[in-house]
Amino acid sequence: MIPATHQPSAGGQVHARVEIDLGERSYPILIGSSLLDDPATWSGLPKAASALIVTNETVGPLYAARLQQALSQQYPQIHLVTLPDGEAYKTWDSLNLIFDALLSKGCDRKTVLFALGGGVVGDMTGFAAACYMRGVPFVQVPTTLLAQVDSSVGGKTAINHPLGKNMIGAFYQPVRVVCDLDTLQTLPERELSAGLAEVIKYGPIHDLAFLDWIEANLLALRARDPKALAHAVQRSCEIKADVVGQDEREAGLRAILNFGHTFGHAIEAGLGYGEWLHGEGVGCGMVMAARLSQRLGLLAEDKVERLVRLVEAAGLPVRGPQLKVGHGEGCADLSNAQRYLQLMRVDKKAEAGEIKFVLVEDAGRAVVRGAPDALVAEVIDACCA
Amino acid sequence: MIPATHQPSAGGQVHARVEIDLGERSYPILIGSSLLDDPATWSGLPKAASALIVTNETVGPLYAARLQQALSQQYPQIHLVTLPDGEAYKTWDSLNLIFDALLSKGCDRKTVLFALGGGVVGDMTGFAAACYMRGVPFVQVPTTLLAQVDSSVGGKTAINHPLGKNMIGAFYQPVRVVCDLDTLQTLPERELSAGLAEVIKYGPIHDLAFLDWIEANLLALRARDPKALAHAVQRSCEIKADVVGQDEREAGLRAILNFGHTFGHAIEAGLGYGEWLHGEGVGCGMVMAARLSQRLGLLAEDKVERLVRLVEAAGLPVRGPQLKVGHGEGCADLSNAQRYLQLMRVDKKAEAGEIKFVLVEDAGRAVVRGAPDALVAEVIDACCA
Repeated sequence: MIPATHQPSAGGQVHARVEIDLGERSYPILIGSSLLDDPATWSGLPKAASALIVTNETVGPLYAARLQQALSQQYPQIHLVTLPDGEAYKTWDSLNLIFDALLSKGCDRKTVLFALGGGVVGDMTGFAAACYMRGVPFVQVPTTLLAQVDSSVGGKTAINHPLGKNMIGAFYQPVRVVCDLDTLQTLPERELSAGLAEVIKYGPIHDLAFLDWIEANLLALRARDPKALAHAVQRSCEIKADVVGQDEREAGLRAILNFGHTFGHAIEAGLGYGEWLHGEGVGCGMVMAARLSQRLGLLAEDKVERLVRLVEAAGLPVRGPQLKVGHGEGCADLSNAQRYLQLMRVDKKAEAGEIKFVLVEDAGRAVVRGAPDALVAEVIDACCA
Repeated sequence: MIPATHQPSAGGQVHARVEIDLGERSYPILIGSSLLDDPATWSGLPKAASALIVTNETVGPLYAARLQQALSQQYPQIHLVTLPDGEAYKTWDSLNLIFDALLSKGCDRKTVLFALGGGVVGDMTGFAAACYMRGVPFVQVPTTLLAQVDSSVGGKTAINHPLGKNMIGAFYQPVRVVCDLDTLQTLPERELSAGLAEVIKYGPIHDLAFLDWIEANLLALRARDPKALAHAVQRSCEIKADVVGQDEREAGLRAILNFGHTFGHAIEAGLGYGEWLHGEGVGCGMVMAARLSQRLGLLAEDKVERLVRLVEAAGLPVRGPQLKVGHGEGCADLSNAQRYLQLMRVDKKAEAGEIKFVLVEDAGRAVVRGAPDALVAEVIDACCA
């Protein structure tokens, strides 16, 4: 007989636990290694006759069977649906694959959904959970850096509409977020950089000391040093938890988390979803928003240059693409800057046609405000290749 | 100069105001006459640069221009989208017509939606409002008896899926419900009867004195006597407000409002949406649920017969249709009762494959519980033509 201490164990190790404090909708983010395979990671989740794992064709072959195994003690039936991979598939048609699976398998109002993948899988699974039978529980299991530091936390779920990104969705909180850092080791280089954009974001808007830390540890992060990744994920989640805890439904403060996203969404939509990764749009968008902040007298030029260097060192684009010709409807006669402005006017922060930008100040704070079209156009012209 | 007292007035008259008490999501139901045309009806709604009226091709020509006129003092821009009429169109495709209109008109996160029509328009407009930019305000303006007494109140919104009714939706409360009783005068006879099914429903589950009143006033209701209609709408809304105020998201009590709906949804789905009206399914479904209650020893036979007579007198079917042949996929080898059971197993109240029925007791209370398949099949066989 094998002594108890020698029994094989899945051996999941939780490095940090961050709480999202939203009253009855509160939940923990578990950050650690070997979490996916450890049944202990999943204990205490809502009981149900069945669970559905939603993943994509890239992540599924790597991790779905392992998650299914780890969940098997908890749920008598575990179903799997595999979506096509990429932002271009963040559509109603893909969402309907989830509903079809739920209904054809006889899933009920207690069925728990698991989002195993990056931001697209998380956004779609969360929205499906929000809508199926008017709401079932779901768990985020983000496997990309971007999803671990940003999109899996805070309950924003959505699909895209041809006329705008994330236009159809819900605020709907998961019951748990599990960030297994080991999954970042299989992440393509380009996806790692995209995730770093959202890590960098937290510096200028909320925590200049964290910005210093990112600068000092950028090589370690790009080399996927486990300790560096653990700290980046933890600190990012802490900041996001703080902001979301104060403003769950983006009545005000939460909008600062969209630093870089107004320009970034325009790039994504203007090029066609999936051409640039979301994090690439955000990286370049932060550069454009920082330059706009400078023109408005909010940010010193050396701070802008420092951010540009950091974004570039993270492996992200710092010059915007030309959106002028042939990239969308009704834009044949528009200049590049006019096309950016047209796309930004359907941003969710816009009000009565006025675009609201998230701008940053020298002191490491963000403000949300409008800016004259002519000035924005100058910034776009200066930033585009 | 015309003296102030002689100035022409839209002259809306509020007969009753019922409050839905849900904390920060509370809202009033205004019940009265000439409300639609009176700008005073709409004062105090959220401010916005634009509003969108959603209606259908039947109701729109009757009332949309009048509502648009009454709202014109409040909203600089008022857009209109007209959906096809009927339960068969309660689909993603119709929902997308609303999103297309919102985005192509540049509607923002403050835009207010107005649902002008019956239950289908209300359910779809509410779900669109829940999802557009993750939530915009909406107002229910029900123009059918069914919508005034039931579906416009309480925040249940949804679309249908080919495999089940109302399977994709949200709990999302309107900011106001306006029941203009005058609109009931243009309602087709069949729709009036369908609405009476939901009025009758409130008796056996909650208020036997109201059931007595309905019996005594059924002819007046079918003759559209304004006073009788006003009372029926008010009392129905009061009961619904009471139940929803205790259990907004149907964790328990609220399920009793689905008396007749488990069988009714099976009829609707089994025949194809739109073949029977929702209220017709509910009317017949109440008869079946009452007979099941009797078989389980909960309800005396004379009470069952009384309900059957009342449903019949309201102009509603009391015998269920045959669903056996050619009305759906994978049902070629099923008996009629088996097909009902198959359809009811995807009901939202079902858990782990067990159908939960809303049953009624002699004392005028409802209980939610399972029943043996064989017994349910006997009831179906006895109730189907």
